[in-house]
Amino acid sequence: MNLVSAAAGGRLERSAATVADAWLAWSVLAEPGDEAAGALVHLWGPQAALTWLAQALADPVAATHALAPELQPRDVDTLVRASERWGRRAADLDVDAVRQRSEQCGARIVLRGDPQWPHAVDDLGVAAPFVLWVRGDGDLRVLGSQAVALVGARSCTAYGDHMAAQLAADLAQAGRVVVSGGAYGIDAAAHRGALAAGGQSLAVMAGGVDRLYPVGNSDLLARTMRSGLVVSEVPPGWAPHRSRFLSRNRVIACAAATVVVEAAHRSGALNTVGHAQRLMRPVAAVPGPATSASSVGCHRLVRDQEAVLVTCAAEVIELTGPLEIAAVVQPDVDTGRLDFARPEDRAAFDALGRRSLLEGDIAVTAGLTAPQVRAALGRMEATGLVERDRGGWRRRSGASLI
Amino acid sequence: MNLVSAAAGGRLERSAATVADAWLAWSVLAEPGDEAAGALVHLWGPQAALTWLAQALADPVAATHALAPELQPRDVDTLVRASERWGRRAADLDVDAVRQRSEQCGARIVLRGDPQWPHAVDDLGVAAPFVLWVRGDGDLRVLGSQAVALVGARSCTAYGDHMAAQLAADLAQAGRVVVSGGAYGIDAAAHRGALAAGGQSLAVMAGGVDRLYPVGNSDLLARTMRSGLVVSEVPPGWAPHRSRFLSRNRVIACAAATVVVEAAHRSGALNTVGHAQRLMRPVAAVPGPATSASSVGCHRLVRDQEAVLVTCAAEVIELTGPLEIAAVVQPDVDTGRLDFARPEDRAAFDALGRRSLLEGDIAVTAGLTAPQVRAALGRMEATGLVERDRGGWRRRSGASLI
Repeated sequence: MNLVSAAAGGRLERSAATVADAWLAWSVLAEPGDEAAGALVHLWGPQAALTWLAQALADPVAATHALAPELQPRDVDTLVRASERWGRRAADLDVDAVRQRSEQCGARIVLRGDPQWPHAVDDLGVAAPFVLWVRGDGDLRVLGSQAVALVGARSCTAYGDHMAAQLAADLAQAGRVVVSGGAYGIDAAAHRGALAAGGQSLAVMAGGVDRLYPVGNSDLLARTMRSGLVVSEVPPGWAPHRSRFLSRNRVIACAAATVVVEAAHRSGALNTVGHAQRLMRPVAAVPGPATSASSVGCHRLVRDQEAVLVTCAAEVIELTGPLEIAAVVQPDVDTGRLDFARPEDRAAFDALGRRSLLEGDIAVTAGLTAPQVRAALGRMEATGLVERDRGGWRRRSGASLI
Repeated sequence: MNLVSAAAGGRLERSAATVADAWLAWSVLAEPGDEAAGALVHLWGPQAALTWLAQALADPVAATHALAPELQPRDVDTLVRASERWGRRAADLDVDAVRQRSEQCGARIVLRGDPQWPHAVDDLGVAAPFVLWVRGDGDLRVLGSQAVALVGARSCTAYGDHMAAQLAADLAQAGRVVVSGGAYGIDAAAHRGALAAGGQSLAVMAGGVDRLYPVGNSDLLARTMRSGLVVSEVPPGWAPHRSRFLSRNRVIACAAATVVVEAAHRSGALNTVGHAQRLMRPVAAVPGPATSASSVGCHRLVRDQEAVLVTCAAEVIELTGPLEIAAVVQPDVDTGRLDFARPEDRAAFDALGRRSLLEGDIAVTAGLTAPQVRAALGRMEATGLVERDRGGWRRRSGASLI
């Protein structure tokens, strides 16, 4: 046993004291999508897995024997070799520092198993994240049946920019959450479109949530945070490396459907498509001119029947199924009675009666912006609470909540 | 028996004297795609069918009895009712006048069963044409495995015009014959593209071949005729009625594949698609901007998996299979030995040796235009007779013909 591994062992054992610390420790020790770490944690839970790692660094032979009764020799071998990789980070492991840094940048830490945990990412199996860092007040569980990922080329055309923004706005209007990666091009247009429609958007970062990357989109990402969420599975301060962009894509692909708006021949967006396919999520692609290099990837996906051709938000929604009422209306924590999940929906609903009101009047009465009112009405219409009536809106007969 | 039907009966019986006259008579009596006429002719042949019609006009009861042993009561009923429809035209039937008029406009008459008959149209079954009128020197049998139909909106966009012309040029270059309807928009662009590439194009008219309709395309259709074919199944002089446009589409759909370049929501091009599907021919559609009303029909076809998305000629050719060597090289009528089907191919091949020659030099030696040389080289390359070599072309080793 050398001195480095003795120090590392001590840090690992301290982190194994609580489940929360153990999850944070694994987030630091393993890169996103490390399937060996995922498998070990699946086998023994995060705490016992850390204890095993401490043992493996001190005494690899004993650690091998500890695994042997439960695993195949090849898997034992994989884990013992992975332990060296994790061990190199164990020496600097400082869970309290990670907590402190998260607090400093205003990030919430959501652990696997927390009530806020989005179960959609569990479909990633042994590649699922251990922890998610979240900035923004939104509910992280929107990364589920109501989320639609819009992805595509960074160097998009004006047509692609328009399509991404329009689809995002229409999806937001229909109560969906637009998920993307915050990059230039299609990603940015998608976030922008969702925000413009008063909707929610979720940006998944490849680096820590304190680094709004790329810098040119930091204003857009700050706005996304205010009315939605910025999310990452790596701790604050971590840089967005190339491998983290690729693993980040699998979190985006956890949305209920993935739409490729524009993608050239070998676009990175096709990597997200691969993840969505492995997750059995529907994939869609937007057509473009056959002469456009920026649509080659989309056309190939459709030709190869790997994606459904879509031209509007309604066709995307067809792939995801109807909006679940739980996305709009949820039991109140205190009273147990149904209430709106969002304060804007509550305010807009309260402004309505059985007599038809125009959107502008609803906005004034409810104290909301026009896009907020439209998005709230879209969500409530989708769940059958309000209806259109002669150019305006009214409560549907019998619709009442606490 | 009234006087009209007596006169009609005489004309019918005179026309029944020869097979050729009988086919011409049926072309005049029945509108294109008349399945009752097709079924009757299938049952008894064109001559006996005419004799039956004469009898039916004179004595419907006896005609019914004549059919009864072979057909179901419902089919007998259909034919007896159809006989009245045909009978109204029988009074003016004048096969010699049709022949004369055909000669006057320089149209060849190709009858079902002639060596020149394109067997691809036989797949229409009882809806197949009886006679085809042809203007132009080309071989009508190109309406088969080497033909690709390009169809679409009359009011196409600049993008659709470009795509149709480019696809047509590239298809012609690869030795395919471009089939379309001679209309404005996509049709015209398709004919123009094929001609520009020195290729062959085939225009199917809804009216007689002496009426190059629409008038605004008469120059283009005249050029199509000079290096390809203008075809119709109705006699010269007949007007292009709405119902004839629809029945004409089924002849276009006899091409080996049908490509919709641009089509709005309820475009007439979708009628051709329906025919191609019933004929079990592959259907393809070109994508366009999702924002373009002119591509809505194409996108719907792809979404509903009724068409394969295609973006270039190579993807269209994939649907039709390789060019058959018989389309390029055929047995010489006199000697029985293989020779080129087209004089341009012969001339270009003769200009080549084993040493690589540039296209410009081949054109000079062979006395051909640049597009003619390119089309000839494309056909011969597709059939393995010539190959590219350092920017030029040469005979493939061992390639020789009489």
